Amino acid sequence: MVSAPAETAVLALLLAEGPLSRVELARRTGLSSTAVTKAARPLIDDGYLYELPPERTAPGAGRPVNPLAVAPDREFFVGVKVSPDHLFGAVCDLRAGIRVTASLPLTDCRPDTVTAVFTELIDELLGCEPEFRDRTRHVGVAVSGDVDRDSGLVRHSGLLGWSDVPLAGLLTDATGLAVTVENDVRALTVAEHWFGEGIGTGYFALVTIGAGIGSALVVNGELLRGAYGVSGEVGHICVDQAGPRCRCGAHGCVEALASTDAILRVVREATGRTELTFEQVVELARDGEPAAREAFARAGRAIGVGIATLVNLVGPERVVVSGEGLAAYDLFGRHIKDAFAAHAFGAASRCPLLLRPLPWEEWSRGAAAVAIQALFPQYAATAATGSG
Amino acid sequence: MVSAPAETAVLALLLAEGPLSRVELARRTGLSSTAVTKAARPLIDDGYLYELPPERTAPGAGRPVNPLAVAPDREFFVGVKVSPDHLFGAVCDLRAGIRVTASLPLTDCRPDTVTAVFTELIDELLGCEPEFRDRTRHVGVAVSGDVDRDSGLVRHSGLLGWSDVPLAGLLTDATGLAVTVENDVRALTVAEHWFGEGIGTGYFALVTIGAGIGSALVVNGELLRGAYGVSGEVGHICVDQAGPRCRCGAHGCVEALASTDAILRVVREATGRTELTFEQVVELARDGEPAAREAFARAGRAIGVGIATLVNLVGPERVVVSGEGLAAYDLFGRHIKDAFAAHAFGAASRCPLLLRPLPWEEWSRGAAAVAIQALFPQYAATAATGSG
Repeated sequence: MVSAPAETAVLALLLAEGPLSRVELARRTGLSSTAVTKAARPLIDDGYLYELPPERTAPGAGRPVNPLAVAPDREFFVGVKVSPDHLFGAVCDLRAGIRVTASLPLTDCRPDTVTAVFTELIDELLGCEPEFRDRTRHVGVAVSGDVDRDSGLVRHSGLLGWSDVPLAGLLTDATGLAVTVENDVRALTVAEHWFGEGIGTGYFALVTIGAGIGSALVVNGELLRGAYGVSGEVGHICVDQAGPRCRCGAHGCVEALASTDAILRVVREATGRTELTFEQVVELARDGEPAAREAFARAGRAIGVGIATLVNLVGPERVVVSGEGLAAYDLFGRHIKDAFAAHAFGAASRCPLLLRPLPWEEWSRGAAAVAIQALFPQYAATAATGSG
Repeated sequence: MVSAPAETAVLALLLAEGPLSRVELARRTGLSSTAVTKAARPLIDDGYLYELPPERTAPGAGRPVNPLAVAPDREFFVGVKVSPDHLFGAVCDLRAGIRVTASLPLTDCRPDTVTAVFTELIDELLGCEPEFRDRTRHVGVAVSGDVDRDSGLVRHSGLLGWSDVPLAGLLTDATGLAVTVENDVRALTVAEHWFGEGIGTGYFALVTIGAGIGSALVVNGELLRGAYGVSGEVGHICVDQAGPRCRCGAHGCVEALASTDAILRVVREATGRTELTFEQVVELARDGEPAAREAFARAGRAIGVGIATLVNLVGPERVVVSGEGLAAYDLFGRHIKDAFAAHAFGAASRCPLLLRPLPWEEWSRGAAAVAIQALFPQYAATAATGSG
């Protein structure tokens, strides 16, 4: 683990932004040049950083500078997303570049089944390259639901049917690796904040749309957790007090109007065709069927109002919109953007909404990003530290 | 100004929590006992801290300890709230205790009028006690609208009709004092976070209800500002897309349903009595008039949904509800609490809503709390540092 604050600052900046000179590192971290040089030394000795060849400088501009760069192969990190029927895994390098992926089916999602399949998946992934097995100490695991990252406990996961499962402990005991467990949307947000659209932003948000509608928020550079573990519940913003009942019990939540299930239900009711699948509803809407088009329009308005609310309250610099729901973005994208523009308050309307497709590998990469964070003491989970 | 990080940590903790022993200070700040003793020394020498008489300890419990305490009279701070027709001022001590208050009317709210009356008010306040004039260096000013605290610029204030007024600079030039300007709801939140219900909370929110509906949020101990200067706009959360048009241009904002003007308008329309005042509407509702009662019920539901949204997204540990609208709390309090309970997601429903009356002195005290913060380098405005 990187322990000194100056080392942490230097490594984190190089991870996010790529090669920088010592002068630039000093300027950006607020450290003195001497402190940067001193902090870089053990990181170079340990192989995390290396010096690039001297940059060509203008004649007479002084001695050439050797920018510092992260050695991405110095250490590898496994990320695993737990879904109800599969484990999706990836090995990533130190800069969250995906090196190999694999998945295994789950016959059920009892914790001991998940643990056994997880062990098998880790073995398969680390077996791909000898250097993976030699240089992997940290695994990140992404789970839908209420997760206490510090203790590694999954407090509640409706999708998996779990309550109070000490997942990090189970997986560490089974594999001997350090395991950090995080909520899946938060994990995705970590990846996007450290290695994607969120680089360098203090305030950042990611919203996922699809079967569920969720978000995670970064404020002052840190993931927002909430005093009661609840935050970023954009899917449970009420946008219509007279709207349909949500699975959470309230009425008119964004999710009750805009999840794939909500869209499917309303089109089935309107058309009387109870056998329709979501894919068929998408086709109907693309063919111009009015009820299907209106269902997507209503969903898009609800999502747009929800994102505007998030932006008006928390003030992100940009919002990434992702999730499997993006496959139908042609049907509700305009409604999302229009409703956002109508409800964003003042200067908040300048906040851009950026679209990012979300293949399943991205969920695994998110989990791996959480494992990369665990290199840094301020993000390390306290409970499961493994044998690393 | 307190400059060393350890001094800052020790003074901030004693300001918020009152007398503590060095051992307790070390435990709470994470500093070593030696570092606490070293940090306290210059603060004692400068008169900010003093040692209390030894605490009685159990026999055999070792030598008695002298808790450290803040000397509240060491320095005074003026807080001024700018309203369209008055300046409201207060002198507060180092622990935000109000020592004296005064107000002066404004004939108009042009910046030069405000500056002249401000100078007069400061003179009147500091003239109350010789020690006020000797020991006051910092003034906090609270203004409704979009304020850039760092530069002291009021970017926009609809209530005052201001755009881009460099208020801190004007007031510093006129008085020679260091002036920090802050949005009024944020200032109130600083006072409540440092010296009130928010003490010790990492996540905290304050919501004001009345002519406007606003909020400010504390996350990880810091006031949330938003990347575009917009945050905490609970008044502009859309709770009914088909609702009435708000002054911001959108439809169905909390403010369009629940501000005093919104309540007044709907009752005037329903009763045909266009001459009604808000006070009369309150009386009608208390007498059981159905349209008036329903207007408050609708307002309460909108506020409750708005607070639930804030809690679901940001996750405060507690929410203080304040503002002149509390005077009618008997009419909509139940609706606020019911709607909050119905829409808070999962464990977020445990977040308590606390009521705090808001006499105008509290606005001035909020401004003074911002001035107290300016003692600490991380909160000091960069532009207007005065002659202090």
